Amino acid sequence: MTSSESAPKSFDVVGIGNAIVDVLVQADEAFLEAHGLTKGTMALVDEQQAERLYASVGPGLETSGGSAANTLAGIAQLGGRAGFIGRVRDDQLGAIFSHDIRSVGAHFDTPPARSGASTARCLILVTDDAQRTMCTYLGASVALDPADLDLELVRQAQVLYLEGYLWDSDEAKRAFIAAAEAARASGGQVALSLSDAFCVDRHRQSFQELVDGHVDVLFANELEITSLYKAASFEEAVDQVRGRCKVAALTRSEQGSLVLSGERTIEVAPVHLGKLVDTTGAGDLYAAGFLFGYTRGESLERCGQLGSLCAGQVVTQLGPRPQASLPDLVAHHLG
Amino acid sequence: MTSSESAPKSFDVVGIGNAIVDVLVQADEAFLEAHGLTKGTMALVDEQQAERLYASVGPGLETSGGSAANTLAGIAQLGGRAGFIGRVRDDQLGAIFSHDIRSVGAHFDTPPARSGASTARCLILVTDDAQRTMCTYLGASVALDPADLDLELVRQAQVLYLEGYLWDSDEAKRAFIAAAEAARASGGQVALSLSDAFCVDRHRQSFQELVDGHVDVLFANELEITSLYKAASFEEAVDQVRGRCKVAALTRSEQGSLVLSGERTIEVAPVHLGKLVDTTGAGDLYAAGFLFGYTRGESLERCGQLGSLCAGQVVTQLGPRPQASLPDLVAHHLG
Repeated sequence: MTSSESAPKSFDVVGIGNAIVDVLVQADEAFLEAHGLTKGTMALVDEQQAERLYASVGPGLETSGGSAANTLAGIAQLGGRAGFIGRVRDDQLGAIFSHDIRSVGAHFDTPPARSGASTARCLILVTDDAQRTMCTYLGASVALDPADLDLELVRQAQVLYLEGYLWDSDEAKRAFIAAAEAARASGGQVALSLSDAFCVDRHRQSFQELVDGHVDVLFANELEITSLYKAASFEEAVDQVRGRCKVAALTRSEQGSLVLSGERTIEVAPVHLGKLVDTTGAGDLYAAGFLFGYTRGESLERCGQLGSLCAGQVVTQLGPRPQASLPDLVAHHLG
Repeated sequence: MTSSESAPKSFDVVGIGNAIVDVLVQADEAFLEAHGLTKGTMALVDEQQAERLYASVGPGLETSGGSAANTLAGIAQLGGRAGFIGRVRDDQLGAIFSHDIRSVGAHFDTPPARSGASTARCLILVTDDAQRTMCTYLGASVALDPADLDLELVRQAQVLYLEGYLWDSDEAKRAFIAAAEAARASGGQVALSLSDAFCVDRHRQSFQELVDGHVDVLFANELEITSLYKAASFEEAVDQVRGRCKVAALTRSEQGSLVLSGERTIEVAPVHLGKLVDTTGAGDLYAAGFLFGYTRGESLERCGQLGSLCAGQVVTQLGPRPQASLPDLVAHHLG
């Protein structure tokens, strides 16, 4: 899938994102309301707000997270050659994050910060309907700037994968653009996930420019893509995005996904593997399955099916890193 | 259930134990064998061994643990007045431990250590048969000594609950005896969990003296009680322990439990609430249910049923702190 002039690549996908440890807690609608949180979205909080919120919730389960990090961990679990770039602090949560992503075989060697803010944490409130609402303290992850960026690693990737959440930090944004240019210059492609409708809303114009100028493969859910073009409907957003990048994969929860490429529109069915427990990581794992197929030169239909399958698995468990064997799932469901 | 000469107590149960954060990972039998681990038991490791083991396992889920801490959290979740004494470091895992036990309503104010070893961690290897095998780095938790002990809190408890694991540290052992004497002197009772067959084997004689001299309510599983008396069979161990303390509650996994009191023997059926996922915390939650009933003056039959129900819930989930509502479960199953 790389352009013909590129050298052989040592990585299928290299991702850049916030390196975050998730704290999963159960919450009810009243709690979200009392704290002014909008269900299904991500809000940024400072350390004090993070502490205050944490003090008011019940017991948690801690697990490595971060949108692009979840995707790259998923690609590694599928057997893809995956690398991740992101910044932790040299603290206990940073050690947990580093262990978890390496333990599934992903390459991760961004040096941990030795001073400054602690490793990023995301308080994820899971409601009875399995929806997740996130409050993120970005901590050490915003320290990522172009000087920290391992461009050599980026150049070795067939696909560079970027999460939209990085747009919330100016340093990370600059690193983001520098990386996209390096990837393209070395014959790689650039994939972007829009991450969150509020994040798109905060940075609409620069996201539009980014999609037009730098992105080959775009991932977005219904809310994000309609927000990006301030469209009145999903259909209008589909018309808007068509042709702006090589491929757009638009996810629609229980309605599956739509993959656009040129004039083609491929409808992909969702995969149900059990009771819906927690939607954390659904979009991230869709991108993992899709890009795993994409970098192997699979058809876009199969890329979408791989995405649906991985997303279908992760929503049946607590947390965004699959506890089941993804290769076994693929062998069983897609042969 | 307290003796008639005691003042009214502000706590139902106060527990002393190791303050530990669990790291739950999936593992197979070959991994246990390769690392010389015996399935279903707890091994102590030093920090270096802990790091080495962690580096060789897959991604984990972190959650507060510790045997007595799990029991006290369970009692608080049931609506009992629970207090916990144990030592963390002032680090991120210590903050997680402190948050989780307080967030369910348990009293916990042992000051965190400001220097020295980090908060205790237990690597829990969960195999496909739902058994758990534990490697514990005791870290800051062994710093608990009599000077740190809040004896005022102990005197306010109807029942003081001690975990056998404390026996592995000399400071904690002294704190343990001092607390048992303070509890009895103020009209309270003392409950002990034998914790682990290997732990019993390491300290057999002093455990026997402790049971004879200081314990009113003893919790043990089949392996632990047979190890305590080097008995040839469970039946022989039952004969040995009968009459040595007020009550002995002996758990037998899928065979339920036996409650001994004087000449009485009460058989308690196990409770099955779903697929067996992870036995971590089964014994701890049995003790929680039992002591919750005991401190409310319930019959020993009902204490055993409460224990079975709480243990039956916790084995259907990952980790030792119930994610379901225990009061709802009690209302539904025991009316």
